[in-house]
Amino acid sequence: MRIVAGMGVAVGVVGGSGYAAGELLRLLGGHPGLVVRVVAGRGSAGRRVADAFGHLDADGVVVPAEPDALDGCDLVFLATPDEASLSLAPTLVARGQRVVDLSGAFRLPAETFADISGGAHPAPDLTPGTYGLPELFRDGIAGAPLVANPGCYPTAALLALAPLAGLVAPGSVHVAGLSGTSGAGKGLRDDLHASHAAGNAAVYGAPGHRHTPEIEAAWARLTGAFAPVTFVPHLLPMARGLLCTITADLHDGVGNGDVREGVERAYAGEPFVRVLPDGVWPQTAYVRGGNAAHVGMATDARTRRVTVACAIDNLCKGAAGQAVQNANLLCGLPETSGLSAAAVYP
Amino acid sequence: MRIVAGMGVAVGVVGGSGYAAGELLRLLGGHPGLVVRVVAGRGSAGRRVADAFGHLDADGVVVPAEPDALDGCDLVFLATPDEASLSLAPTLVARGQRVVDLSGAFRLPAETFADISGGAHPAPDLTPGTYGLPELFRDGIAGAPLVANPGCYPTAALLALAPLAGLVAPGSVHVAGLSGTSGAGKGLRDDLHASHAAGNAAVYGAPGHRHTPEIEAAWARLTGAFAPVTFVPHLLPMARGLLCTITADLHDGVGNGDVREGVERAYAGEPFVRVLPDGVWPQTAYVRGGNAAHVGMATDARTRRVTVACAIDNLCKGAAGQAVQNANLLCGLPETSGLSAAAVYP
Amino acid sequence: MRIVAGMGVAVGVVGGSGYAAGELLRLLGGHPGLVVRVVAGRGSAGRRVADAFGHLDADGVVVPAEPDALDGCDLVFLATPDEASLSLAPTLVARGQRVVDLSGAFRLPAETFADISGGAHPAPDLTPGTYGLPELFRDGIAGAPLVANPGCYPTAALLALAPLAGLVAPGSVHVAGLSGTSGAGKGLRDDLHASHAAGNAAVYGAPGHRHTPEIEAAWARLTGAFAPVTFVPHLLPMARGLLCTITADLHDGVGNGDVREGVERAYAGEPFVRVLPDGVWPQTAYVRGGNAAHVGMATDARTRRVTVACAIDNLCKGAAGQAVQNANLLCGLPETSGLSAAAVYP
Amino acid sequence: MRIVAGMGVAVGVVGGSGYAAGELLRLLGGHPGLVVRVVAGRGSAGRRVADAFGHLDADGVVVPAEPDALDGCDLVFLATPDEASLSLAPTLVARGQRVVDLSGAFRLPAETFADISGGAHPAPDLTPGTYGLPELFRDGIAGAPLVANPGCYPTAALLALAPLAGLVAPGSVHVAGLSGTSGAGKGLRDDLHASHAAGNAAVYGAPGHRHTPEIEAAWARLTGAFAPVTFVPHLLPMARGLLCTITADLHDGVGNGDVREGVERAYAGEPFVRVLPDGVWPQTAYVRGGNAAHVGMATDARTRRVTVACAIDNLCKGAAGQAVQNANLLCGLPETSGLSAAAVYP
Repeated sequence: MRIVAGMGVAVGVVGGSGYAAGELLRLLGGHPGLVVRVVAGRGSAGRRVADAFGHLDADGVVVPAEPDALDGCDLVFLATPDEASLSLAPTLVARGQRVVDLSGAFRLPAETFADISGGAHPAPDLTPGTYGLPELFRDGIAGAPLVANPGCYPTAALLALAPLAGLVAPGSVHVAGLSGTSGAGKGLRDDLHASHAAGNAAVYGAPGHRHTPEIEAAWARLTGAFAPVTFVPHLLPMARGLLCTITADLHDGVGNGDVREGVERAYAGEPFVRVLPDGVWPQTAYVRGGNAAHVGMATDARTRRVTVACAIDNLCKGAAGQAVQNANLLCGLPETSGLSAAAVYP
Repeated sequence: MRIVAGMGVAVGVVGGSGYAAGELLRLLGGHPGLVVRVVAGRGSAGRRVADAFGHLDADGVVVPAEPDALDGCDLVFLATPDEASLSLAPTLVARGQRVVDLSGAFRLPAETFADISGGAHPAPDLTPGTYGLPELFRDGIAGAPLVANPGCYPTAALLALAPLAGLVAPGSVHVAGLSGTSGAGKGLRDDLHASHAAGNAAVYGAPGHRHTPEIEAAWARLTGAFAPVTFVPHLLPMARGLLCTITADLHDGVGNGDVREGVERAYAGEPFVRVLPDGVWPQTAYVRGGNAAHVGMATDARTRRVTVACAIDNLCKGAAGQAVQNANLLCGLPETSGLSAAAVYP
Repeated sequence: MRIVAGMGVAVGVVGGSGYAAGELLRLLGGHPGLVVRVVAGRGSAGRRVADAFGHLDADGVVVPAEPDALDGCDLVFLATPDEASLSLAPTLVARGQRVVDLSGAFRLPAETFADISGGAHPAPDLTPGTYGLPELFRDGIAGAPLVANPGCYPTAALLALAPLAGLVAPGSVHVAGLSGTSGAGKGLRDDLHASHAAGNAAVYGAPGHRHTPEIEAAWARLTGAFAPVTFVPHLLPMARGLLCTITADLHDGVGNGDVREGVERAYAGEPFVRVLPDGVWPQTAYVRGGNAAHVGMATDARTRRVTVACAIDNLCKGAAGQAVQNANLLCGLPETSGLSAAAVYP
Repeated sequence: MRIVAGMGVAVGVVGGSGYAAGELLRLLGGHPGLVVRVVAGRGSAGRRVADAFGHLDADGVVVPAEPDALDGCDLVFLATPDEASLSLAPTLVARGQRVVDLSGAFRLPAETFADISGGAHPAPDLTPGTYGLPELFRDGIAGAPLVANPGCYPTAALLALAPLAGLVAPGSVHVAGLSGTSGAGKGLRDDLHASHAAGNAAVYGAPGHRHTPEIEAAWARLTGAFAPVTFVPHLLPMARGLLCTITADLHDGVGNGDVREGVERAYAGEPFVRVLPDGVWPQTAYVRGGNAAHVGMATDARTRRVTVACAIDNLCKGAAGQAVQNANLLCGLPETSGLSAAAVYP
């Protein structure tokens, strides 16, 4: 897709016919300041964009995912697997193009990446990329050559967890993650077959899910010291939506009011975080298709524990929406540009 | 909700906390030319808008659904039951306010309405309202005092059926309608309980569904003579999405090329109708949350019958999206204003 | 799986780890007269049965799908693709083993099969197999060497249609078929990915779906003369359940009472067909996991048409349940043996 | 429903048209030793059983839920709200009829019940009833006048938790509960409307869900001392199925092998518990409609924590299936009578 740029920043979207790429194109289609100039992919190269993405009424053809194809782009979204991002990002950065990478390739220090993936990181100088969770780490994003867009689970987990720094024992954090199937991508797998997944809830990936070190790295940044986090992901029978529920031990003397005050202070003025009133818990139905995160909380005087939960749309705030938010920061645009649409309910 | 109007037409949305009202507010939130000045409802009056509609991040309070509350509005959307529309619309029209009515109150001649509802129509002079299906009957909408927004099934059925006028025997039309549960509204019913509806497909309402005369009235307008239509609605286990499949007897000599040519001619230049290529059938997943209608077709030389199917989002093109499309025509705005967002997939 | 036979007929189930094979094993696990001696498959050969079928708590190992592996079986269920059935059935029949074939390989005359599949039938002498829809064609099943178990759509369509023979114009029949995704089998496909299929309703396969000639062949047998039938299948967002809705032109003078009387007479005493009262339509939720077919009907004096709908569980009455019913007839067991369990609701 | 008893224990089912009552009738319909003599309800009294429960093909009429109506029953299942159980059970017990109560009325000591419900328990002598979780507390069930059938969440949570007694710090237990909507009963509520619940995951009820003290009471019995438990329930978009995931701190020196050995020892010979191999986690799809509990586990050397998860069908092992299991014990029947059917997959 080569669009004659009007005004606006020329961007490229690399990601075949994947869900995150499709979501990026959906959001960018209504963006006032970012103009899609190239859509690139591997398996889908050569297909019409409107055929690769049945929900888009777009012109143009998907081009091969190679750096030269992205020449005219000031900013490139990589909605690609780790390997593709590892291969493309260094070239793009070297050429001075801004990169928002949605993969896990640049979120962690090179050594941690190597531990997880079992191989040395090919571009350690670019690690860790600037972690693009604006509500927690806004400083530094605007000037970053490469923004590592957070994982879907870490986004929700950290938005729930961050205000608890200082209020809970750092090593006492348990995270239950619940995700719709689109979080697992578009690849065909037996457990993602519609007949199996319909009406099925399942644990998976515990205890070594790759999002655990990502959560821990940010949690350490927030508290000032490393502490391990227990994270158990679950797959739910729905296409979109993600919920993380945190339970943790309150420090002595910390009560319900302290928690609420901490959460409200943390997100005062944040356009994408809604803090729910007492007695109201987040529901993914209210954030479907939008960039909002809903956060609810309660403390339990009996157990001296706190429960904080956060619901997001895994493809939007948990992927493409947050990527656009980061791009807005990179380009000096209003942070909400192209992201103010309400959720689709029901 | 009383918003200090900037530039733009001041509109009111009446519809409590219903799905169509919520969808109108979602769409209008991103509309460049229509400004919501009042949100009114019956049961939800006095609630904050953001509480009545959990997916909206809106200010303001729902006011009672009375004409005086709508004083400052140039145009009013009535996303209300028949009775409320019958009560409100005449006053609004008399005051010179434009009305887009999403109920069934003004879609048919007063006598037909009386036959269906079992009571005389209280405002026969306003019947039939201008039928707001722009792709078929665009003329006259711009100047109408009251636009009767079509039903969800009739929208999809007629978009599939209209190009067949002249090609099929008018009385040979069978329509299978398939709808998600949101088409039945927000009221609580045993058959709409989540535990029952999950994984359930059911016939209902045949053969006397109230959308049948609405389809027949428009079909008569398209063919020039009345012919009865057979319509069987089905309830599906999904929140949104509607599909109508037409089968009908081809006139002698009419072949596949004629049908395709007819459909493509009918919708050439229409921004909201996508005509699918041979071998591709509509899927509701590709129109979720968007205002598009996807139309696919095939003929069967063996049976001398044609199959044409149309998928829409019942709350968008089948209700609120089409209402905004009509409002755009009424206000002299570009017809696609506020409606160009892509569908949400998956 | 080689089970030391107690009393009972030794049966084999061929079908890898497919849904129909899994459903057969579920039903046979509670059958008082049929004992599973062999479970055979192609891709799953060598796996433990309990691994190939996670819902079964079964001993034994899947053996290769070859005739010799089935030696000790008096009766063999082939829950296999056409090609496998074409390859296995002739040998089994020649050896005197009874066969219930769930594929489409033997349902039609060899010439019709050749038309559909584009190649000559390799075992024309066995075609058409005895069509195993007991409620309509019970005679002859008990003595058949090979029973061709009907397709899922034809089962529901014909149970709705059969009582209309003599009451409607044979060539005026329109069938809307709605099926859950398990009807498409366990193979991985983009349109069966959970993220795509969730909340999606789609037309597919019209007008040349292979179940059309199967419906027509039985309809011709019921009416005495061939007449084409229009059949449009739809894929629904649910794992199990199938609904067929028939609309057709009533003969002059035929009224609602005649239709009801015809349906009730047709199914009087049938243990698996429930005729619903006026105003009640079938819902797949009430037949999930059971062998029942629910039939509802209405006539429309205005259009002179009738609507009859039938809901079944596509894997049970539409496949494995009906296969067991046929096996019961073949073995001289009570027709309801192993099939009396109620549906699983909700 | 008054059935002429053949051989077998005469039982009554009280529960209107509720889901648990419907599931009891489904299971009892295939039970070789328990014969349903009375079906009683409040709102559904006077309706035909087959109308109140559309999935059952049953004769008879629902009678009023009064003790005299249950005269001929040796055993009565109360699938009723607390108040109805509190009203009926004392009379039935006094008459010498055995009672399996599915409500929460008799699961806890009277004082704990009073704390939760805000009012004195009217029949403290019957509290706590014999807690009917046979795999953990089989002794004493056979001779009990009243068995308190466990809640759905406690069943899954305790089956996962029990083998950890002695292996983990008792006060370190976090339970994430995930349930399908049928766990919330058949009552109509906004958040159980199909259009809302489809595709929605939500936290609810934390931190004071009434199942928490029930889990704690049994956990205290297993460990020998009270320790509080953190429990967060979640509502999922599916009708049936329940998953509880436990995370807890391992005692020093306890490793993966100890946990696996503990779980396998705990459930050796248990017909309804399947211990999954390493790397396999429970999925509700494999227990739908069956009485099985699937348990999977892993330890994390890094965090020194263990994860154990258990999946059940909330209406079967989590309610009616377990009630039948308890009734089998009460009546001296094989514990698996009427409960050996495989799960319905997919």
